[in-house]
Amino acid sequence: MHQAALLVLRDLGLRILLPEAREIFAAAGARVDEDMVFIGEDLVDAALASAPSDIQLRAPNTAFDQRYRQGALLFAPAGGCPNVSDAERGRRPGDIASYEETIKLCDAFDAIHLTSVSPEPQDVPINLRHLAMTQAQLTLGSKLPFVYARGRGQVEQSFELIRVGLDLSEEAFANEVWVATVINTNSPRQIDQPMAQGIIDFARAGQLSVITPFCLAGAMAPVTVAGALTLQHAECLAGMTLAQLAKPGAPVSYGGFSSNVDMKSGAPAFGTPEHVKMQLGTGQLARHIGLPWRSAAGSAAKLADAQGATENTMGLWGAMMAGATLIVHAAGWLEGGLTLGYEKFITDLEALQSLAELCKPVSASEAEIGLEALAEVEPGGHFFAAAHTMARYETAFYPPLNADLGTHGAWVEAGQPSADHRATEIWQAKLRDYRQPAHGPEVADRMAPLVEYLSAKGGAAPLD
Amino acid sequence: MHQAALLVLRDLGLRILLPEAREIFAAAGARVDEDMVFIGEDLVDAALASAPSDIQLRAPNTAFDQRYRQGALLFAPAGGCPNVSDAERGRRPGDIASYEETIKLCDAFDAIHLTSVSPEPQDVPINLRHLAMTQAQLTLGSKLPFVYARGRGQVEQSFELIRVGLDLSEEAFANEVWVATVINTNSPRQIDQPMAQGIIDFARAGQLSVITPFCLAGAMAPVTVAGALTLQHAECLAGMTLAQLAKPGAPVSYGGFSSNVDMKSGAPAFGTPEHVKMQLGTGQLARHIGLPWRSAAGSAAKLADAQGATENTMGLWGAMMAGATLIVHAAGWLEGGLTLGYEKFITDLEALQSLAELCKPVSASEAEIGLEALAEVEPGGHFFAAAHTMARYETAFYPPLNADLGTHGAWVEAGQPSADHRATEIWQAKLRDYRQPAHGPEVADRMAPLVEYLSAKGGAAPLD
Repeated sequence: MHQAALLVLRDLGLRILLPEAREIFAAAGARVDEDMVFIGEDLVDAALASAPSDIQLRAPNTAFDQRYRQGALLFAPAGGCPNVSDAERGRRPGDIASYEETIKLCDAFDAIHLTSVSPEPQDVPINLRHLAMTQAQLTLGSKLPFVYARGRGQVEQSFELIRVGLDLSEEAFANEVWVATVINTNSPRQIDQPMAQGIIDFARAGQLSVITPFCLAGAMAPVTVAGALTLQHAECLAGMTLAQLAKPGAPVSYGGFSSNVDMKSGAPAFGTPEHVKMQLGTGQLARHIGLPWRSAAGSAAKLADAQGATENTMGLWGAMMAGATLIVHAAGWLEGGLTLGYEKFITDLEALQSLAELCKPVSASEAEIGLEALAEVEPGGHFFAAAHTMARYETAFYPPLNADLGTHGAWVEAGQPSADHRATEIWQAKLRDYRQPAHGPEVADRMAPLVEYLSAKGGAAPLD
Repeated sequence: MHQAALLVLRDLGLRILLPEAREIFAAAGARVDEDMVFIGEDLVDAALASAPSDIQLRAPNTAFDQRYRQGALLFAPAGGCPNVSDAERGRRPGDIASYEETIKLCDAFDAIHLTSVSPEPQDVPINLRHLAMTQAQLTLGSKLPFVYARGRGQVEQSFELIRVGLDLSEEAFANEVWVATVINTNSPRQIDQPMAQGIIDFARAGQLSVITPFCLAGAMAPVTVAGALTLQHAECLAGMTLAQLAKPGAPVSYGGFSSNVDMKSGAPAFGTPEHVKMQLGTGQLARHIGLPWRSAAGSAAKLADAQGATENTMGLWGAMMAGATLIVHAAGWLEGGLTLGYEKFITDLEALQSLAELCKPVSASEAEIGLEALAEVEPGGHFFAAAHTMARYETAFYPPLNADLGTHGAWVEAGQPSADHRATEIWQAKLRDYRQPAHGPEVADRMAPLVEYLSAKGGAAPLD
């Protein structure tokens, strides 16, 4: 498939709508014919050689710094959702209030490693939205922020806001990764203007772009697993090559989010066998090129119900077994990304926390085996009071976030709550107990004058 | 842990309540002190050498014959549930009507490989229940039946009923596996009378016993993963050794069902990180001794909700990644086994079918990659009408059983059904569309006189 992808890049080429990107490719020796760019194996090989395999991510709170490399396992929450829903307020367009709440919910859980960028705060004018989103992420959240690549104007203003907010010199900002974006190609074989500009701008600024073709087999990609992956791989290599041509050594991530569509409705499906097969195949391709990579879980369910949990847990295991560095949309992603669900966020967190716990090594030392405890307890007896138990029981097991492990009788007395009903109480409690991180007020103070200045001059319009 | 388990067997010993079993151990050279049996490494080694690593399972319908060996992946439904529940009729004690319905539901899905033995048909007198259960399994179901080891009288009558029902000579019955049982030790370190008798009787009859300590860490087993697995391994080796002493070469399966308890309530938990760690450890121990083995999924949830789906999917992936031959309680197991849920059965089937589909190999041939299709579709276009798609779309993707992949609007119009509500319609349709397997009437005719005869003489009482 790697070889087939190289043929696609060389012989079929990509349509790249941004003239600046085509000029970069042409200057490096790629054949350019009108808006089509044909990329030879030599350029791809050079890009894969200069792309870093181990990237240090810096967070507003250094306790949440992460290394981005093969062998790491990072979870990011639902991204890109236009709508938000919860049991109290129903389903509605995203606004800045729910955007801020989601950042707070992400901050409440260590198993979330990157700050949320969902739901879309549609009540903030589009030319100012990047300022509000960046401000909220850095003042309310502790983890790596995200900035959409919606054109150079917004990206540059966001970079400056982060630099000022975190009190970094231009050099300090440029030398490490303080912000990430996701680059979606317009499959098949097209890179739109803001996406190409984002690749270039993030690379030159030394910030992380995660190249992620969204190849839905049967729709924007061939109907087969191998075909969809070949297209995904080709598009991803093209994006990574552009990043490395813009700045050799720039932090850029391989990525894939391929799944299938429902052939009845054309709607995207997640957590399906084909989705998992594509995750596993993407992992093989990532290991072939030796670079860290991003995968995604998610769900087409409308609710935090059994469908939603099955789909997301399938995708989480698939991505984990595939060796993904980063699993995006890992919590709260409903309706194939159209809605961020608060209850779903909580029920998914149970899975994320369980997988994180599962990653902790298990000791089989003599003390852990506990032959003395085995000798101490009579046949047919129990270990509740054994010294071996007493010394460990408080921390021996993962404490469930939402699961009800009690009796049927107690559950009936409690009014027979389903998992999604219990989840409502949990997110409400997490929001009630939220405390702004220590860095928040200082960052807010530093950002305020710049936001005022940039807002006064109209912010920045997105690039179409 | 294997070495530690050998020390447990040799130095701490097991309480084995059945005198006949102690005599078998004593005759083989084990030290016996009152009801305690101490088993040396030599006996364990001999047992592991004579236990078969590849067992042919025969089903009433030969299309469902299975090979039981490492590398196979078989799913069995919820077992051992005293209660049954569904959205129409609520939660109630199991009866023969729901027992028969469950067999029919198992027959409706190829991803279920063994016939159900749940819920317990409590409306049938205990001395006749084994006859009714065996009769129902063989006349209504197509897959390997299960007989509880509740004492020699019931086991022998059940064997005879199967032999007569399937029209087998005594030799033909003895030469292959036509029925399975599960042997639960009474952890820690005790084997009760009916269980020991079951091991002996199934071994001598050439039928499969699956030795399954139910080691709940912190309760009947040490609080640590390594301690619980060491105990599980020791008990399992003891049971397998008894089977091989009763009849060398007898079909017997290694097995484990260890998880943790909720340290607040003492209730068992499933699909937890500790459960998965124990599954993975059990797989390592099974590979160490080179034999096929049984694991289990399951759920402590009360409903087919997000908790139930998350727990079961975690356990299914854990067991699959651990290389389990057989995953028991894979569908329908609620409340830690107290209830079989029809809706849960359906929502779990989605996961089972997905995993089965995932096991199918993926081709990366030139035809599957489809470079021609990639060339045919314009950049930014779509593959819906590509020849490559048209030739494959009908079978390219797993068709969901219960998942709703449609739009939010269509779902609202349909009354906003959650996955468990949709599941009700599915099991009802499956029961409505059920057709008795072709062998059913003949088997029923052959069994009827024997059931009448055995019933007239009072069936058989269970052994305490």
